[in-house]
Order: sequence, then C-alpha cells, then structure tokens
Amino acid sequence: MSGTLYGLGIGPGDPELLTLKAHRLLQAVPVIAYPAPEQGDSLARRIVAPHLPAGRTEVAIRMPLVEARFPAQEVYDRAAVALGGHLEAGRDVAVLCEGDPFFYGSFMYLFGRMAERFAVEVVPGVSSLTACAAVLGAPLAARNDTLIVLPGPLDAETLRARLAQAEAAAIIKLGRHFPKVRRVLEELGLAESARYVEHATMTEQRVLPLAEVKADAAPYFSMILVHRRGEAWT
Amino acid sequence: MSGTLYGLGIGPGDPELLTLKAHRLLQAVPVIAYPAPEQGDSLARRIVAPHLPAGRTEVAIRMPLVEARFPAQEVYDRAAVALGGHLEAGRDVAVLCEGDPFFYGSFMYLFGRMAERFAVEVVPGVSSLTACAAVLGAPLAARNDTLIVLPGPLDAETLRARLAQAEAAAIIKLGRHFPKVRRVLEELGLAESARYVEHATMTEQRVLPLAEVKADAAPYFSMILVHRRGEAWT
Repeated sequence: MSGTLYGLGIGPGDPELLTLKAHRLLQAVPVIAYPAPEQGDSLARRIVAPHLPAGRTEVAIRMPLVEARFPAQEVYDRAAVALGGHLEAGRDVAVLCEGDPFFYGSFMYLFGRMAERFAVEVVPGVSSLTACAAVLGAPLAARNDTLIVLPGPLDAETLRARLAQAEAAAIIKLGRHFPKVRRVLEELGLAESARYVEHATMTEQRVLPLAEVKADAAPYFSMILVHRRGEAWT
Repeated sequence: MSGTLYGLGIGPGDPELLTLKAHRLLQAVPVIAYPAPEQGDSLARRIVAPHLPAGRTEVAIRMPLVEARFPAQEVYDRAAVALGGHLEAGRDVAVLCEGDPFFYGSFMYLFGRMAERFAVEVVPGVSSLTACAAVLGAPLAARNDTLIVLPGPLDAETLRARLAQAEAAAIIKLGRHFPKVRRVLEELGLAESARYVEHATMTEQRVLPLAEVKADAAPYFSMILVHRRGEAWT
C-alpha cells in the first residue's frame, strides 16, 4: 500500500497562520520535503520549524539559481523519483508549500508528475493574497468587484489593459519588475491609492508608500494592492 | 483601555482549516460575533463549534432576507453599537468570518464603521478560492498567469470581456446566476475545461461536471474554476 503525497499549505510566513490540519499532518507524516535554495536554509522549513517534531526524514528540493524563466524541470524530475521511493515504501510525504499549494505555487510541478501514480491530497493554506490585505488593513474585494491577480513580469501594455478590467487588483512577484509596475500605476492614476507590502506576516514585514520603495529593492515576496473605489467600505 | 476587534478568518468550512491563530483567539476572547440568518443557525458558528469553549458571550448579527442588492446597512449600524459597547468596556471581540475577512467578506461593513475608533486586527483565513482549487485537484494559477475573480451577478457581456483578459478565472457567488455563467462559458468554448464545486470542504461538498448542474440548483457557496491551458502543469 503506497503512501499519500500531501501538498501542505503552510501559510504566508507567520508560523501561527498554519491550519490545524497542516499542523496535525506535520506531526503524523514521516517524510517532509520543501523547496530550498542551492545553498542555505529553506524559507518553508523555517515557517514550520516551531511545529516540527524531531526524527522526521527531510528532503530538500534544492533549486539552482538560474536565469531561465521557469524552474529547471530536472530538479522536479529528480524530486519526484526521491519522493516516489518513499511513497512506494508506504511512507506518507508532506511537501511544504509557502502560502497555498495551488496559488502560483511550485507544488504543481510535483503534482503534475505524481498525481496519476499516487494518492495526492492538497491542503489549502492562507495565501499571500489575503495575508497582504490583512496586513494592509484594506479589503481586497467586495460585493460585485472583479479582482485580478497580475504577476509583475507581465509587460507594461498587458498590465495596463488588464488593470482596466477590474475594480481591485493584486500585483505579485514584483522583484526587479517593481519600477515598471509603479510607472504603470502612475500613468493610470492609481499610484496614490496603491498599497505596498513586503514579507507580509514575517518578522521582516514592511509596509511602505509606493513612492518610498527603492526602485531596485522590492523583493520577490512583495505585493501591491489597488482598489479603484478606495475606502468606501460602508 | 478599550478591547480589540478581531476579524477572524475561519476558513472555508472544514473546522480543521482554521489557523492556529484563529484557534488561539477563540479560546482567549470573551465575546464572539457572527453573521446569521434572520432565523436559524449561523454557518460561521457551526464551523468553529468544535473549538468553541463554553461561557463565551455570543452576538448573532442577524441579516433579514431582503431583495435589496446590498445588505441592510442598519443591521451593521446596530451591530457596531453592540460590539462597540463590549470594546469600550475593555472586552476583546472576535467576529467570525467565513473564509477570509477581506475576500468578499461582510466583515468590511463592520471594519468601515469601527476601524477609526477601535484597534482592529484582521486574521487572514483560508479563502474559498484556494479551498476550491484544492478540492478540484487543479492549480488555480501558475507562473505568469493572470487570475481573475468574477462575481456571478456581473452581466454576460462583462463576464465575456473580462474572461478574455486572463488565463485563469474563478467565478464566485453563482446561485441563481449559474445558468447565465454556464452559457457564457459555453459560448467561449470554456465549458469543457471548467470545474464546478459547491460547499467546498464542508460535509455537503459536491463536485460536478458543469453540464450536470441543475440550472436552478447552484447554491451561493459554489464556484467555477477555469484555466485556458488546462492540465499542462509540468
């Protein structure tokens, strides 16, 4: 009898934003896996560290720093083999996923490789989307608003066109795309009402006015929220 | 010293999808409030019932069944007065919010009335958006996908135009708008790949092919997920 592969949403960063279910599975599953840089510590592992019992088998899925636009497929091929070995031996495996596994998460690469051969259960988590809204103290979307989530790497023209189609927007994965995104928001007259946060719910969390963010200093884990109607939440 | 008002995300329905933080606050806060129908039980209260200690003061915010498009403002005016009384007396209050407080949640109506007078903290929760993706076993969005969230009450023309601007879409608040939404998806050639779920993660959960949903039977708590690229998650 093969084990089950869990895609475990562990929330946006605050270890207390784990779900009770993720917490229970962390205690129960003998093998945990997590993304990690080529060298150094895993953010996902850091998030669950306060909850992790001793004696777990740990598999770090180390991603080399590459210029390629999409992550190296071979890394996931190898991880699927390694985790598949544990599952075939009857051991359940939990893959730690920052935020939610299916909200722009890398878990889909393992899911795509393993879901046909093994039992897979995805445990949803608190996504960065709602965590950022909570930190910024502003509703994401309400009533019949359209909410659009736009990755920062999109070109300026696409960003402009798509922002026009929604009352509320979240722009994610900013990093080096921040200056372009800010320029687009300025052109659309949305910069004043836009809200910026980085590392939401983590100890490094920072909330800044858009104008005060240094052009080259926005991390990957940053987000801008925009709402056309502003503060009329009554 | 006034109390703190917590907007407590309690997740999509499964009581195990509460966060550790929401669970801790439920044990600590002397007053809980929750939305409820004019008569009968509160869904939000049902979700947290397994975790609720005895002896809490409970405030049901009862919403009359009205034809009005937006909820009666007077109900929130009265609730703000009632909860404000507890806060002024130094008692913390937790308002239970299905899913996440700021993702199309009614908490914003209290937030708008109370945030200037009292300390308010929003505790993000697992939203129906990611819960539905987990239940349906399909990534919501990946890489540089644009993800759009569309409320079912939007007219067919708006739905059509906005669906064209995104690789991934979630259509929420279906209810009586389901037949119109299905027709739009059929016209756009998206009906085959669309996924439908109702009451995700609750005991009443059902996953159905779009074609098998009865036109008048979709509840408010149902959702359709669409992805243009389908299953290429590798």
